[in-house]
Amino acid sequence: MNQSVISFRSVNALLGPILFGLAGLMLIPCVTAWYLNSPDLRAFLITNALTALCALVLTFLMRPSVLRLRVREMFLLTSLAWISVGFFGALPFILSHIAFSFTDAVFESVSAITTTGATVLTGLDAMPRDILLWRSMLQWIGGIGIIALGAAVLPFLRIGGMKLFQTESSDFSEKALPQARRILARLLVIYLFISFACAVAYGMAGMSLFDAVNHAMTTVSTGGFSTHDKSLGYFESAHVEAVAMVFMIIAALPFMLLLPVMRGRFAPILRDGQVRTFFVALAVAIAGLVLWLMHTGQETLFLGLRRVAFGIVSIVTTTGYVSFDYTSWAGLAIPCFFFLTFVGGCSGSTSGGVKIFRFNVAFMMMIDNMKHLLHPTALLPRTMQGRPLGDEIMRSVMAFAMAFAISFAVLAVVLASVGNDFLTSTSGAAAALANVGPGLGDTIGPSGKYADLNDISKWVLAAGMLLGRLEIFSLIVLLAPGFWRY
Amino acid sequence: MNQSVISFRSVNALLGPILFGLAGLMLIPCVTAWYLNSPDLRAFLITNALTALCALVLTFLMRPSVLRLRVREMFLLTSLAWISVGFFGALPFILSHIAFSFTDAVFESVSAITTTGATVLTGLDAMPRDILLWRSMLQWIGGIGIIALGAAVLPFLRIGGMKLFQTESSDFSEKALPQARRILARLLVIYLFISFACAVAYGMAGMSLFDAVNHAMTTVSTGGFSTHDKSLGYFESAHVEAVAMVFMIIAALPFMLLLPVMRGRFAPILRDGQVRTFFVALAVAIAGLVLWLMHTGQETLFLGLRRVAFGIVSIVTTTGYVSFDYTSWAGLAIPCFFFLTFVGGCSGSTSGGVKIFRFNVAFMMMIDNMKHLLHPTALLPRTMQGRPLGDEIMRSVMAFAMAFAISFAVLAVVLASVGNDFLTSTSGAAAALANVGPGLGDTIGPSGKYADLNDISKWVLAAGMLLGRLEIFSLIVLLAPGFWRY
Repeated sequence: MNQSVISFRSVNALLGPILFGLAGLMLIPCVTAWYLNSPDLRAFLITNALTALCALVLTFLMRPSVLRLRVREMFLLTSLAWISVGFFGALPFILSHIAFSFTDAVFESVSAITTTGATVLTGLDAMPRDILLWRSMLQWIGGIGIIALGAAVLPFLRIGGMKLFQTESSDFSEKALPQARRILARLLVIYLFISFACAVAYGMAGMSLFDAVNHAMTTVSTGGFSTHDKSLGYFESAHVEAVAMVFMIIAALPFMLLLPVMRGRFAPILRDGQVRTFFVALAVAIAGLVLWLMHTGQETLFLGLRRVAFGIVSIVTTTGYVSFDYTSWAGLAIPCFFFLTFVGGCSGSTSGGVKIFRFNVAFMMMIDNMKHLLHPTALLPRTMQGRPLGDEIMRSVMAFAMAFAISFAVLAVVLASVGNDFLTSTSGAAAALANVGPGLGDTIGPSGKYADLNDISKWVLAAGMLLGRLEIFSLIVLLAPGFWRY
Repeated sequence: MNQSVISFRSVNALLGPILFGLAGLMLIPCVTAWYLNSPDLRAFLITNALTALCALVLTFLMRPSVLRLRVREMFLLTSLAWISVGFFGALPFILSHIAFSFTDAVFESVSAITTTGATVLTGLDAMPRDILLWRSMLQWIGGIGIIALGAAVLPFLRIGGMKLFQTESSDFSEKALPQARRILARLLVIYLFISFACAVAYGMAGMSLFDAVNHAMTTVSTGGFSTHDKSLGYFESAHVEAVAMVFMIIAALPFMLLLPVMRGRFAPILRDGQVRTFFVALAVAIAGLVLWLMHTGQETLFLGLRRVAFGIVSIVTTTGYVSFDYTSWAGLAIPCFFFLTFVGGCSGSTSGGVKIFRFNVAFMMMIDNMKHLLHPTALLPRTMQGRPLGDEIMRSVMAFAMAFAISFAVLAVVLASVGNDFLTSTSGAAAALANVGPGLGDTIGPSGKYADLNDISKWVLAAGMLLGRLEIFSLIVLLAPGFWRY
């Protein structure tokens, strides 16, 4: 066997179990559909059978002689995992009696597994519960997927400065593998625990069991799908909104630092630079916008604070729930939410966007640059997360920032060229790439739906969501000519 | 005398001659006003006297014992030069019989000397010629200012990767000073020659002497002020537009590389990476937009090409002339021109924006990053402009890019908070920061004027123009606490 080519069999050997996991989780909507006597039981059973069959073939018929997981195989696996789960996740929508178009089904599924939360569905309140449950579950699966990716794979692949977060969990040497598995298992336990706690809290705030379970899954994954067209605004409850805000913020924190919290040790998370910047950024944005709304007489202190805090937490954590149409505020709201769309939460969380630590790195670079301008010979050793902030990390953060900016511009121009207006094109590109969900404007804004877009726009946005979720380079590296030949 | 503090006297000793130069050039509108028997002769004479008086005081009464020009003094001088010329340049507008408000006068003057070209004036066609001439001259002065800054000062200060362009012209050691002076003198000769050639070409294309002289000054400075409300569209002449395009492109090329061209050697400019990228970017943008306009049936090939080529060259060179309201094209035009606003011309030219070489550096970083992802141990030595592209240059280019992005976001949010809509705020911030001129939308778009904005918006935009022209760091480094104390 040629050592230099990619070991497709090794990739398949890991893709198989992932699809097995998906097939297993699909039993839940199967049972739900059976219990509800839903006409879509057939759709779920067929999908389940197809997914399991593919998983079987990949795992057993294409077994590699030796498992070889080098950088290339991991890149391919990462992209294929998201794309194949997106495809199999779309099957129930296609096969259901609601008759989604192929485009809509893929858009909805990709939007779910990338935890974006943009939806083409209207009439959610009357939608069959098995379909709603499957949408929420796909987001929840996407959430744990990104946690695992951020903890184990991206630091190993050194994408966009993620080397900063290299720990035992991203060491794939044989010696370290049991330790890596142990950490990933703990992260899964935390994720399950937070999801459970969130569901209980929603229940106590007055949600029905079904709503509480669905919203818990889409909150901890910072996905933002709802079971109601009016999103969280449906409940008209400050209690529900408070629960959502707390769990959106938790879900946007680095999950690795939630491990000590579970044992009652708060110091590591409170001392983390990324977490501090995240809270400061939230506080400044909320205070600024509330003061401006009071100054212009558009809101009173308490109602304004409630609406602004929810809206900003929802966008910055890249969840995308809506409690109130913030674009109805004249003036500052649209540019404010437009720029906040890019920010994102902490690395190692379920949230998307550029992410806070990259702003920390960029800010340090700017300060260092100013110091260097004044003292050209000064040596400025920098550390972050307790590690030296070397040139390699700086460069890869900057390459990520450039790639993000260019992807944004290209997506926006393409969206405009297929017939969308300026605000829809730019905010849609940003909301997809940052995995936020709602854009701005009448079509895709907080009161709009993605349903009204044409098919090509939906495909472009779905590609943008995958690009953003996979931190751009995991996906575009596959297009490099050097990737396929050695 | 304390060695550690800034030598204000040394700064003044150089600021004086700059103001003397300004006073000298102001004799031209004085003579024009006298010749035309203009009511504003008084305004020019008073300004002239005030400027000369200030120059005298600075040069002779505050003479330093030893001239000390270190990094700090150069930073302070750079900012003070632009701010003081902006202020003295505004005086004729304030003192004229047209009764500009203080805000409008400063906006117009800053817009001129930063070669931005945004104007608060309407009724240009009926405006006194001495005032029109002064506006155009301020742009022309701003143009030679930025050439000198780019050739001598910014590489010395190592702003935003400009160290790449370090030559004898930016060596302030005593040994190299005569050589630096010689290069700067040659650049001035080229600038004069191109201005003269441009005026002649405009005259041959059918412009009056007055129009030809004014437009030549605002073309070679990539400023874009016109003597007509309809800008170059007034002439309705393909010949005039062709002349403008050729000279806008020349003015956006690195002037240092025009030196060999004058001696008939074209190789250096044609082999320059920055210049090649610039032409490729122009060609791709023009071809893309023309094809899309033909595809959507909005333009025919020839008229479309004429309009698109002029519009894109005008924006990318950051001139800002308008021959046709390109925002009347539905769809792609607004996002396309929005993103092109940021691009800018070549470094070492009179154009603004992010500038082509920084895109080259960013693109190389992204390619290197991809290669590193696949081959972590690969060594990738990089060169650019025949020099090693070291970490210092990479970092300072990236710091510049981040500072540019943050300045853009802050300016846009501030503009929105004082009452401007999304398109006006974002495109206005971009057009000011990149020294382009026209923004997008009804208020400040190609068919609009900046006159309708409120005063605070005008001050914010003027600050953005200075920030952009001085490559951001020259200005914000003055705000660093470490700048004033040692």
